[in-house]
Amino acid sequence: MKNPIVTLLTDFGTKDHYVASMKGVILRINPQCTLIDITHQIKPQDVEEGAFVLASAFSYFPKGTIHLAVVDPEVGGPRDPILIVTDHYFFVGPDNGLFSLVLHKEKVKEAFKLTENRFFLPKVSDTFHGRDLFAPVAGHLALGISPKAFGRRIDSWKTLEFQGPLIEKKSMVGKVVHIDSFGNLITNIEEKNLGHFVRGIPFHILIGKRRIEGIQRGYWEAERGDLLALIGSSGLLEISVNEGNAQKVLKVKRGDPIRIQLK
Amino acid sequence: MKNPIVTLLTDFGTKDHYVASMKGVILRINPQCTLIDITHQIKPQDVEEGAFVLASAFSYFPKGTIHLAVVDPEVGGPRDPILIVTDHYFFVGPDNGLFSLVLHKEKVKEAFKLTENRFFLPKVSDTFHGRDLFAPVAGHLALGISPKAFGRRIDSWKTLEFQGPLIEKKSMVGKVVHIDSFGNLITNIEEKNLGHFVRGIPFHILIGKRRIEGIQRGYWEAERGDLLALIGSSGLLEISVNEGNAQKVLKVKRGDPIRIQLK
Amino acid sequence: MKNPIVTLLTDFGTKDHYVASMKGVILRINPQCTLIDITHQIKPQDVEEGAFVLASAFSYFPKGTIHLAVVDPEVGGPRDPILIVTDHYFFVGPDNGLFSLVLHKEKVKEAFKLTENRFFLPKVSDTFHGRDLFAPVAGHLALGISPKAFGRRIDSWKTLEFQGPLIEKKSMVGKVVHIDSFGNLITNIEEKNLGHFVRGIPFHILIGKRRIEGIQRGYWEAERGDLLALIGSSGLLEISVNEGNAQKVLKVKRGDPIRIQLK
Repeated sequence: MKNPIVTLLTDFGTKDHYVASMKGVILRINPQCTLIDITHQIKPQDVEEGAFVLASAFSYFPKGTIHLAVVDPEVGGPRDPILIVTDHYFFVGPDNGLFSLVLHKEKVKEAFKLTENRFFLPKVSDTFHGRDLFAPVAGHLALGISPKAFGRRIDSWKTLEFQGPLIEKKSMVGKVVHIDSFGNLITNIEEKNLGHFVRGIPFHILIGKRRIEGIQRGYWEAERGDLLALIGSSGLLEISVNEGNAQKVLKVKRGDPIRIQLK
Repeated sequence: MKNPIVTLLTDFGTKDHYVASMKGVILRINPQCTLIDITHQIKPQDVEEGAFVLASAFSYFPKGTIHLAVVDPEVGGPRDPILIVTDHYFFVGPDNGLFSLVLHKEKVKEAFKLTENRFFLPKVSDTFHGRDLFAPVAGHLALGISPKAFGRRIDSWKTLEFQGPLIEKKSMVGKVVHIDSFGNLITNIEEKNLGHFVRGIPFHILIGKRRIEGIQRGYWEAERGDLLALIGSSGLLEISVNEGNAQKVLKVKRGDPIRIQLK
Repeated sequence: MKNPIVTLLTDFGTKDHYVASMKGVILRINPQCTLIDITHQIKPQDVEEGAFVLASAFSYFPKGTIHLAVVDPEVGGPRDPILIVTDHYFFVGPDNGLFSLVLHKEKVKEAFKLTENRFFLPKVSDTFHGRDLFAPVAGHLALGISPKAFGRRIDSWKTLEFQGPLIEKKSMVGKVVHIDSFGNLITNIEEKNLGHFVRGIPFHILIGKRRIEGIQRGYWEAERGDLLALIGSSGLLEISVNEGNAQKVLKVKRGDPIRIQLK
């Protein structure tokens, strides 16, 4: 593989040796790899958050990128380690739903349960498959080894339920699915769903104890410190405060409802 | 361009997909790039802090490095996206003063407003020019495309006022411009200004509610836990506590005054 | 050197320009380097924590990797800057015990006090040897310059006392040496020491105000939210909570005791 790129997404944080150990293992197998962190600050064991962040970032990388993702509460237990090959990318990680949202956007070509332990570290711990199993598989993939060498073909994998917004007569009820480091509240309401629902009818948005009128194009259309709604850079309805923090203003948390109310 | 290096400085944090998306975009255009984070922990929307950290780091990189900086409270609004070419580097980002301090140290060769959207992503969001506009421009620059291809030549750009210290009869009054992760208080008093002012006359330093006698060469010259003043590694007067945290001891914040008092 | 890899471990945090300046310096000397962060979140001045994290990560990197580590409370003072060459790696940093734990695992081939200032930046500050001295030495090493060019051969260096567990008649008393970002409590009790001590006799573990029966293989063997003991991925006894945070549950801190009590 020319210029192999491996991305890493974990809930390991960056204060310990965990991420560096994984990178060392990959580079020992293929020192030509370019390693890119997606994030290591997924909330511990929060597979759903990992799935969201991965799905938001993966598609910007070059075709052939190997996406290594480890949010793995059941490490060492019965969940399988898997490799999913799509039209554009490779995904390596635990079979616990972490790739659910990615696979709404990518077409699967083939998938494998990772069973060939000649590609793992000689000793696989029961607590750190990121280093002992997933990183070496990613390193070997980056050498150009064929996906089918790594294990047994599978044709199903775990998926998380990601419920879309519910539509009632004159309102659509979604929820906050991610809160970013600016405090922007990202919802599960897609631009096109919103458009189909409102069809030009005026509406307001109810969230926390506040009401927001309509949608702006960008932060700058609101006064500094004002709440606004917009379609964010991932194509999802987002609640923000211009040069402020919507999460602190509204005191909502992930999972809280947002309502689009037609007038 | 051989071994192109792109640095990134943002206020995006590292828990979301934002920085990784920018890196993916750059690597899709030029997979040969070496990507180096300056920091992503600029306080949200704090252009002044971004300017300080960028100006402290940029000059250590090889000639030809592309410095991509995005602290961009007016994203999508009227501020222009720009490219500044200096004797040694390329700077890509919003025209909001973020490059002000850099340009005290670098000679500008040419500058451009980024208008050629064939170098942007096909769809440019109103909230994430880092990914949709600045990253692809940096990627194309790293391919060796001539700066003048990216837009219209400009000969002025926004600069922030960075006030130097004020001199009164027997005292010089500066301020804290940055507090680092050790709690060191970095001021706007440059080594040479201090030298010109004191000209060998004994002095003390007043900050918070404390008085410090003279200047030390290094942390180790103070007792463990003691306050001291020194010329820090950026050539600026700095207040520290040996193996401690001056910010916690003095409870000062950015912008607070520091006074050099001749005896 | 082909594909030179330089790792960085510091207590500098990632919000300031410090780490980026070091990377710029290295790349200016050798733009071919692959730079990998081990961590920059060592607690300020905590040499012991730095030693632990470095020792946990270094051995996963390819032979020939240059490990640059700077936790340096005495910077600018009397402590020496050193280079230690082992059978597999190069270690560059201050002579303050930071490499103590590494050198339990690696055989030293040769060691040098860094005295040849032609390999340093032209001006060496008294507060930032990471940038001015250690980074340029690492960069030059990555060019393939012979270790002996950098200074004077030495045959001793500072080592920290890392006390192992104490054995009493029917109990073994160790301590917590690291708490990771999941809240796992990593102790100084090695798997083989534990095995020698218990020799198949049933035992329980006392830590904080709690008692834990025996050892599990992995997190998944405990109920969600339950305390457990296991041999962690570094071969050390570790106290965890399945999908939880043992540090928060037990309210222990680094240095606190753990007791293995035979029945």
